[in-house]
Amino acid sequence: MRIVVVGGVAAGMSAASRARRQDPDAEVVVFERGEYVSYGACGLPYVLSGQAGDSTDDFGALVARTPAQMRARGISVRLRHEVLSVDAGAATTLVRDLNSGQTRTEPYDHLLLATGVAPVRPDWENLNAAGVHVLREIPDAQAIGASLGSGAKRAVVIGGGYIGLEMAEALHLRGLKVVLLESAPQVAGRMLDRQYRAEVGAELERGGIEVRAGVNVEGLHARAGRVTGVQTDAGTVRADLVIVAVGVRPRVELAQSAGVRLGRTGAIATDARMQTSVPGIWAAGDNAESLNRVSRRKVHLPLGLGANRMGRVAGVNMAGGEAKFPGVVGSAVFRVLNLSVARTGLTHEEALALGLDAVSADVRSTDHAGYFHDARPLQVRLTAERGTGRLLGAQFLGHGDAVKRVDVVAALLHGRGKVQALAEMDLAYAPPFSSVWDVLLVVAGKLRAMI
Amino acid sequence: MRIVVVGGVAAGMSAASRARRQDPDAEVVVFERGEYVSYGACGLPYVLSGQAGDSTDDFGALVARTPAQMRARGISVRLRHEVLSVDAGAATTLVRDLNSGQTRTEPYDHLLLATGVAPVRPDWENLNAAGVHVLREIPDAQAIGASLGSGAKRAVVIGGGYIGLEMAEALHLRGLKVVLLESAPQVAGRMLDRQYRAEVGAELERGGIEVRAGVNVEGLHARAGRVTGVQTDAGTVRADLVIVAVGVRPRVELAQSAGVRLGRTGAIATDARMQTSVPGIWAAGDNAESLNRVSRRKVHLPLGLGANRMGRVAGVNMAGGEAKFPGVVGSAVFRVLNLSVARTGLTHEEALALGLDAVSADVRSTDHAGYFHDARPLQVRLTAERGTGRLLGAQFLGHGDAVKRVDVVAALLHGRGKVQALAEMDLAYAPPFSSVWDVLLVVAGKLRAMI
Repeated sequence: MRIVVVGGVAAGMSAASRARRQDPDAEVVVFERGEYVSYGACGLPYVLSGQAGDSTDDFGALVARTPAQMRARGISVRLRHEVLSVDAGAATTLVRDLNSGQTRTEPYDHLLLATGVAPVRPDWENLNAAGVHVLREIPDAQAIGASLGSGAKRAVVIGGGYIGLEMAEALHLRGLKVVLLESAPQVAGRMLDRQYRAEVGAELERGGIEVRAGVNVEGLHARAGRVTGVQTDAGTVRADLVIVAVGVRPRVELAQSAGVRLGRTGAIATDARMQTSVPGIWAAGDNAESLNRVSRRKVHLPLGLGANRMGRVAGVNMAGGEAKFPGVVGSAVFRVLNLSVARTGLTHEEALALGLDAVSADVRSTDHAGYFHDARPLQVRLTAERGTGRLLGAQFLGHGDAVKRVDVVAALLHGRGKVQALAEMDLAYAPPFSSVWDVLLVVAGKLRAMI
Repeated sequence: MRIVVVGGVAAGMSAASRARRQDPDAEVVVFERGEYVSYGACGLPYVLSGQAGDSTDDFGALVARTPAQMRARGISVRLRHEVLSVDAGAATTLVRDLNSGQTRTEPYDHLLLATGVAPVRPDWENLNAAGVHVLREIPDAQAIGASLGSGAKRAVVIGGGYIGLEMAEALHLRGLKVVLLESAPQVAGRMLDRQYRAEVGAELERGGIEVRAGVNVEGLHARAGRVTGVQTDAGTVRADLVIVAVGVRPRVELAQSAGVRLGRTGAIATDARMQTSVPGIWAAGDNAESLNRVSRRKVHLPLGLGANRMGRVAGVNMAGGEAKFPGVVGSAVFRVLNLSVARTGLTHEEALALGLDAVSADVRSTDHAGYFHDARPLQVRLTAERGTGRLLGAQFLGHGDAVKRVDVVAALLHGRGKVQALAEMDLAYAPPFSSVWDVLLVVAGKLRAMI
């Protein structure tokens, strides 16, 4: 039994580990194009900003297990090996050793595609100038670090999604003057409802990060091969460092070469066992679709936990076990400067777009008892289906860990819980942690009356 | 329609407000023995310690609504009025105005007993000496404040439950030398399993609060009517301030005078609508039993949220509405110095004592991604039923708000959730908030394999 995994980061490494545990006799081989496996890519902005690791280039701090540790577990890790194509009929892959340049045919019994996503690279002039970066993998972060080391002072971050926001923070913390450009009217557009997005932009501005929204980038300026500014439809913004964070696309070329069916989202379609349309070929992680349990639609949601979860499921199944991926509910959390933001399920806008009869309640409260000196604002929107009260989603704005309350709603979404039940729950209370009625109970009580 | 409420703090005031809202024409009268209504008694230690309010005697900061505000809502609040007895046959109460000393007969259509709990006062010599205090109501806190103001330096707190722990912290923060005496082998005995209790004691000691466990108090020493020490079976402990926090008992004298049935816990028995065994008489709050949804047993759990929840249910029902109290799951959280502690459901020890085939898993992790500089230890025990995987409870030790994750388990307990489902949930992840696999997912995964 030979299990071949393409891609050695989140999904790929989770799958390899699980397959190994499920079937100690299976041969498990991981081909990784790059030089690192098993690292937390989500941590890259935090190493760059100095919030994690021993220094701002200590990306090794993000490595969960080294290739040697994986090999000690009986997993064969081949770094700098790129899988070029798949012959599904022959059950082989064509692999190039990027060091030697040689190619070799590698057979498989089960093949996992864990190729992740690639940053979208718009067709802009000077996109390849020095000082222009995307952020996805460790070498990207190293290149950004090099630009910082060479004295960059003015940064433009293009795109106000998770990566754009995190990189704007990181560069701000490194002392750069940062301008964030967003083509939509507000940042954080795909995560939150309009009113909540506005708070994210306001926090950036409060912290000294300039936000220019509703602005389209037309190209980049460069001099002597080095970026000097960003051309927009509202003028030029000077920059000696530019982060392009305008989205990601699933890496599906290999899947297509194997005749694997893609879903409507453009990512690889799988069943709940993570099997693709081609026997013997599996997919997991950011390159694969998943089921949103709230909307009952297939979605492409490239986030770290989902990738790891899918990888585990694929690993168990490839090695002869039986596991199913129950899907996602759309949970996400991020922090930008002093604002913590969390969401799960559907936003009100998303629910309406899906044709659901959504109703939402908002509550502004505090994270600790209001009379506590350290009480800080905590705002929540809870959304449910009118008539039935079925919970659809929640959005939180607050400070520190208080927004992790979102997981209560996430857990209830997994079981198709109702707002009526949430309003009556026995949540933990003491003054250093909440008001007697936790903000979740308050908002659920308010929403219940609107159902 | 005349609704009479006895007791104007948590349950009583919640009931009065809800009854008023349910039936704007009903007459709602609240008799409160003391001088304050509608205040957060749980906040008293935090005002005393200087963590809440404008000063260490600003107990007014804890008042949610003043009598005037309640009256403006059409609720008649009578302070310093003690209800002496109930004639259920005549549907009247005998009420004494503590200012004038006069008694009066007050009729009711519905009577709510929200008389709360009284601190247990052991039969110790010199219990009434100056400097010896219990903590339950605002006047108790004011008396403690006066003892502090008169220069107390050495405090002994007797009892290591919630109030004892919170008062030990408060007095420590006020600069006193504090000794905590506990008759059981460890503090926090009713809240946590043995290993977790040990961490609470260790935190107290780390912070400079001396813990003497397994020590029985035999009496108090006093000189000239002022306490000078505590006599134990292991010697005398000097003290000029003593807090007696050895438990509470439900105030049920009035209920008994009315012929109301008590439950096996000694608190008032009610149905899910909070109706007692006597028609027209209701009970809610710390003097009433509630159903533990995990053990399916009646319990006496005098905690703030439960009291408010019961009060609301009683208020709706007395005013002709229809509400049911679904019961508690045993959630609680507290902080002592730098340690946050939370629990829900049953501890492993409690589950075994109930004859359940309990199995528990423990995980030590961090509250944020391990590579984050601000990551702090977070420890969790998850308990489930062997064979079925039904969740039974969770215990957390950590810092700050991280332990509020307990609410995820509390929510699942309400729906008789299983560990298998928890292990596969889409909880929110970003490095500033958790590891990719939140500690809850890690412990659930571990426990699932043990079921």
